[in-house]
Amino acid sequence: MAKTPITVAFGDGIGPEIMTATLRILEAAGAELDIETVEIGEKVYKRGIDNGMDPKAWDSVRRTHVLLKAPITTPQGGGYKSLNVTLRKALNLYANVRPTVAYSPFVETTHPKMDLIIIRENEEDLYAGIEHRQTQQVYQCLKLITQPGSERVIRYAFDYARANGRKKVTCFVKDNIMKFTDGLFHKEFERIAAEYPDLEHETMIVDIGAARLANTPERFDVVVMPNLYGDILSDVTAELSGSVGLAPSANIGDGFAMFEAIHGSAPDIAGQNIANPSGLLLAAVMMLIHIGQPAVAERVHLAWLRTIEDGIHTRDIYREGSSKKLVGTDAFADAVIERL
Amino acid sequence: MAKTPITVAFGDGIGPEIMTATLRILEAAGAELDIETVEIGEKVYKRGIDNGMDPKAWDSVRRTHVLLKAPITTPQGGGYKSLNVTLRKALNLYANVRPTVAYSPFVETTHPKMDLIIIRENEEDLYAGIEHRQTQQVYQCLKLITQPGSERVIRYAFDYARANGRKKVTCFVKDNIMKFTDGLFHKEFERIAAEYPDLEHETMIVDIGAARLANTPERFDVVVMPNLYGDILSDVTAELSGSVGLAPSANIGDGFAMFEAIHGSAPDIAGQNIANPSGLLLAAVMMLIHIGQPAVAERVHLAWLRTIEDGIHTRDIYREGSSKKLVGTDAFADAVIERL
Ligand SMILES: CC(C)[C@H](C(=O)O)[C@@H](O)C(=O)O
Ligand SMILES: CC(C)[C@H](C(=O)O)[C@@H](O)C(=O)O
Repeated sequence: MAKTPITVAFGDGIGPEIMTATLRILEAAGAELDIETVEIGEKVYKRGIDNGMDPKAWDSVRRTHVLLKAPITTPQGGGYKSLNVTLRKALNLYANVRPTVAYSPFVETTHPKMDLIIIRENEEDLYAGIEHRQTQQVYQCLKLITQPGSERVIRYAFDYARANGRKKVTCFVKDNIMKFTDGLFHKEFERIAAEYPDLEHETMIVDIGAARLANTPERFDVVVMPNLYGDILSDVTAELSGSVGLAPSANIGDGFAMFEAIHGSAPDIAGQNIANPSGLLLAAVMMLIHIGQPAVAERVHLAWLRTIEDGIHTRDIYREGSSKKLVGTDAFADAVIERL
Repeated sequence: MAKTPITVAFGDGIGPEIMTATLRILEAAGAELDIETVEIGEKVYKRGIDNGMDPKAWDSVRRTHVLLKAPITTPQGGGYKSLNVTLRKALNLYANVRPTVAYSPFVETTHPKMDLIIIRENEEDLYAGIEHRQTQQVYQCLKLITQPGSERVIRYAFDYARANGRKKVTCFVKDNIMKFTDGLFHKEFERIAAEYPDLEHETMIVDIGAARLANTPERFDVVVMPNLYGDILSDVTAELSGSVGLAPSANIGDGFAMFEAIHGSAPDIAGQNIANPSGLLLAAVMMLIHIGQPAVAERVHLAWLRTIEDGIHTRDIYREGSSKKLVGTDAFADAVIERL
């Protein structure tokens, strides 16, 4: 099999540790990858590049069209742009796909049956980055919702549901207040839902929707929503499933794709070999499917599942009783490799 | 004792039932109230008043300065302004105080130790209502954060914490993305926190903050945040405590105050005498404290608690095993009155 070129960024904080673990597993599993490593994040910001990504990194991603990215740290203070948001916008990655699954009884969770996917719009909303200071005392940020932006992520959600044997797509909006912006998203949702009569659909106001999601996540299947609600609620569902450390995400566009864990760079535990590489590893599994190596994806996923089921757990999911062995990042990767 | 004049609105859907139940309890408890009833909501909207509140209702509230309000229904379709938002802005009700407490083991909850108060800013943010259609395909909504608006709700939160023997105030913002608007809220929080050295304070990014709130609400005490985050997360915590039907709220300004349940008018169960009046009743308890009748407030609160502890439960919180008797709205009110 020809090797698929991908761009890899090791990131900051716990990034290098979890990326090293992930790449070791991919290699052992026989993934056919031609890896270009690029530098992004803190060091690049500090070299004066305000979006944390230098021209060489851009060149690589433009060539490979696929980025596997560890979390990065944005330096404190003004003047720095979010690299995540810059990448999502520059590469037109309009759909952010965030599955959360409970691995009960192996990982402790209050919701053993949860198995849902949040698909968040990934470029618009308050993330458009249009903010200004009107006076010393009055600040504004523009929330942007467009018809094409809403249509493509909603269509993606329905197509995803159909392709993955899902039954229902739920939409969260706050259009009792934002009648134009969230109203547009809602209207597009109803319009597109009519084209998928084989799938159920429903819409909830985001406040009560969030309450239901936090209380009965098992009743949800695919949930599509504007950017900011998705940011907040995907952290909620990931944590409810057992740990934010378990949750992967795929940022998908028509030309490019970026895969990453949903958690941050956790500088407080960096360099200690205790971080859970699962979020990034499962993102790599999504990447393998995306680049047409589903058999390797399956191998990695099953070996990872067996590791979790054997109770070999990193600190974040380790619980006396349900877990068997407390391991660090490297030993966790070794355990996955043994089970390939 | 002189009677305190208050304005009462029976609202729509389940509103009239739960308000009748609430007022019966207040009267039996000896609350000294001079009640002016006003009409607001659906019928008023349909008379062509676009904010759902007619001039007589405004006159009454301007006179009494206190509104006890049942949920209302806003008719579908464009042209109607949210009455809730109109009232909050017109009366300058800048702080929305939302306590959520678990009543374990009497009411089933996954978080028996939770006892927190969300204080949401109540006039600004995306609720400022500045929305427009730029083209057929591009819609915008303005998020507004001001220094005075942030200062007064944050100060309210710290004063509230101090007055109520609370230890910690947590702030939720998304200032890694919204550096100006949420950045201003965060900056004000730090500035004001320094004036309250007797209280702990901490700030979290709202995504991971929400995840922690949903997973370990018992670690939070007072939590202050901009309007929309507070809207979403107060529904989440209320539902986690057992039911959105239990949660009251106080909308507080310097000149006026409005008290209401956090749930909606639930037209699907209206007129069936099954709704839980607890959210509105506990809001009335907050009102009694506000208007200087703390002894009556205490009586009502204790009788309500005893009813809940005796397992006399409405449908939303009734569970085989922990509950003893399934009651409707009226019978629940009778049970509270018996225990006064
Ligand atoms: C780091 C941050 C900009 C990002 C976001 O807000 O989208 C993160 O929280 C995420 O969810 O991927
Ligand atoms: C009815 C609606 C406008 C209101 C809000 O969004 O604030 C409600 O959800 C609430 O939380 O009081």
